[in-house]
Amino acid sequence: MKTQMIVLNGGSSSGKSGIVRCLQAVLPDPWLAVGTDLFVDLLPRSLREPEEEGAGSGRGLVIGADGTVTVGEDFLRLQDAWTAGVVAMVRAGARVVVDEVFLGGGAGQDRWEAALGGDVEVLWVGVRCDADVAAGREVARGDRAGGMAAGQAEVVHRGMRYDLEVDTTHTEAMECARRIAAQVK
Amino acid sequence: MKTQMIVLNGGSSSGKSGIVRCLQAVLPDPWLAVGTDLFVDLLPRSLREPEEEGAGSGRGLVIGADGTVTVGEDFLRLQDAWTAGVVAMVRAGARVVVDEVFLGGGAGQDRWEAALGGDVEVLWVGVRCDADVAAGREVARGDRAGGMAAGQAEVVHRGMRYDLEVDTTHTEAMECARRIAAQVK
Amino acid sequence: MKTQMIVLNGGSSSGKSGIVRCLQAVLPDPWLAVGTDLFVDLLPRSLREPEEEGAGSGRGLVIGADGTVTVGEDFLRLQDAWTAGVVAMVRAGARVVVDEVFLGGGAGQDRWEAALGGDVEVLWVGVRCDADVAAGREVARGDRAGGMAAGQAEVVHRGMRYDLEVDTTHTEAMECARRIAAQVK
Amino acid sequence: MKTQMIVLNGGSSSGKSGIVRCLQAVLPDPWLAVGTDLFVDLLPRSLREPEEEGAGSGRGLVIGADGTVTVGEDFLRLQDAWTAGVVAMVRAGARVVVDEVFLGGGAGQDRWEAALGGDVEVLWVGVRCDADVAAGREVARGDRAGGMAAGQAEVVHRGMRYDLEVDTTHTEAMECARRIAAQVK
Repeated sequence: MKTQMIVLNGGSSSGKSGIVRCLQAVLPDPWLAVGTDLFVDLLPRSLREPEEEGAGSGRGLVIGADGTVTVGEDFLRLQDAWTAGVVAMVRAGARVVVDEVFLGGGAGQDRWEAALGGDVEVLWVGVRCDADVAAGREVARGDRAGGMAAGQAEVVHRGMRYDLEVDTTHTEAMECARRIAAQVK
Repeated sequence: MKTQMIVLNGGSSSGKSGIVRCLQAVLPDPWLAVGTDLFVDLLPRSLREPEEEGAGSGRGLVIGADGTVTVGEDFLRLQDAWTAGVVAMVRAGARVVVDEVFLGGGAGQDRWEAALGGDVEVLWVGVRCDADVAAGREVARGDRAGGMAAGQAEVVHRGMRYDLEVDTTHTEAMECARRIAAQVK
Repeated sequence: MKTQMIVLNGGSSSGKSGIVRCLQAVLPDPWLAVGTDLFVDLLPRSLREPEEEGAGSGRGLVIGADGTVTVGEDFLRLQDAWTAGVVAMVRAGARVVVDEVFLGGGAGQDRWEAALGGDVEVLWVGVRCDADVAAGREVARGDRAGGMAAGQAEVVHRGMRYDLEVDTTHTEAMECARRIAAQVK
Repeated sequence: MKTQMIVLNGGSSSGKSGIVRCLQAVLPDPWLAVGTDLFVDLLPRSLREPEEEGAGSGRGLVIGADGTVTVGEDFLRLQDAWTAGVVAMVRAGARVVVDEVFLGGGAGQDRWEAALGGDVEVLWVGVRCDADVAAGREVARGDRAGGMAAGQAEVVHRGMRYDLEVDTTHTEAMECARRIAAQVK
């Protein structure tokens, strides 16, 4: 059966977005790219930066000064609706690459699998990067709170079941994309 | 019945995005914001800027030097899948604001209504702006091809059936948002 | 004598950047656009967001949760060097539009005049916008801490000596630019 | 004598910006970061994208569909003024990192040295990256015209005299920054 969805899971600054853009370039069909960052952009500002804003409701996404990320009930409820929407795009015929940061590891995969219902062909890809290398890239990109990369490097992979893993520590995004594309049916 | 979706339709530089952010701020519930610009960002680069890239496949979105926008078959097929996805988000419980540029006027509304299936409560909003004012704002924002604003100002409203119209020519985004919010059930 | 520099001063979200882009479009010569936002982008991240970062050195730019802006000694010292650089660009023949937020009102103008040395032809322009309208536009743009617009709307104009004032409350950026351009020699 | 300026020269997508941000993070003093991309942002839109805009004046920066970059007389004249401005910032006491793409190789260095006048302490750094690796990163970043990276990888280094060279092909931006910082007096 044709691969309908590719899910990349990896920590912040592990290089997922670059791999996604390379995948879109090397895969012969046009694939849509969606992901966690995109979902966060859809939220009202009050759910995106309560800490900086001083709102402190705790109902959205809170990024601490040390890069710790916590999410509240409104975030989770809307994320479920978003996930249902992405599944519907796939069922409607779009091929979709999702890049995710499963802060709860395998629980994130379970959440997607429940939404997918068992008859969608998914390629699960782990994107690894050594914590110290990811921390350096976090400084180099300059748009992320310090500490996110190191804090997420290992924890996101706990309890995950992958079809394929790539490691950006010593492998370029384009080469990772080619390895992934080779597994796409 | 509670309003589940708000669709804003207006030409480029008519002020839709600003109204969407104000709506997210004034509506008491958290609403997700999606729209045409977002969908375009999901596409592979090869479908987004073929003219600049010299690809010339014509299968994606082509923005001419004069701001004319044309779309090809891959764009339309993936846009249908995206639309189905947004409808699924609404059915899964998210309240969603969509900002659109219906280049084909009422045909765009028909497309959405077919996808919505008749039992989703939608508030249809026309966002108008005098063509010359929109053209000036296009220069002021600095990130759009010249000519889009003027070219789209009238045509997007042909054959549309609105619940409410706002005009940003002399009305601030926040005030437009308040008028729209007052119609949300 | 030919106008060599245009300085726009106004509070956050008063519409300066839009006027600058329109000025660049309507003035027949090519003008360089520099400004406060640009200077801030040149700073190391540690001087840009100490509060969010938890650094708390107070030596750079600190934006409080209520939109209050304070600046420390490193910021001021580097800003003086930056100002000297912009003056040198003008003396080297570039025509330059500067958009500024003089948090200290007329003291900011004094600082520039000291750097300019008296023989550069400057057009001083005040950009006004009613505080409540600017506050609404701050929400509409979505990328500024709430409260900056209202907090700065009046204070930046105290003790300023302008050649010309424009008010974006009811006047489009393009029209403001045309009025300013008409005063450029 | 204390290093007052660091000039990084390398082709598009060779990793200069990442190194600059890492340098700002690891150097104990605050350094300002300026560069070619920044200068281009200061230009009027009519000098930035004439080809796309259809203006075709050839007086600014023209990026061809194949990534070829050519610059016209207005660009060169304003760039000289900009360079004079950066030198003045350094003379006024700011320590400055410049990232450059010397399309004419050593001629670009000569231009800077003429502006610097011989008494500014500069560290000249070459940033190399294998052309095919840079081309892959160009796809991964997704915001550059295809072909720029490969076209510039070698040519920018012709006739250059460096104090130090780094190669991002197999070395992280942070590690390159540490090697450069070790040479800063």
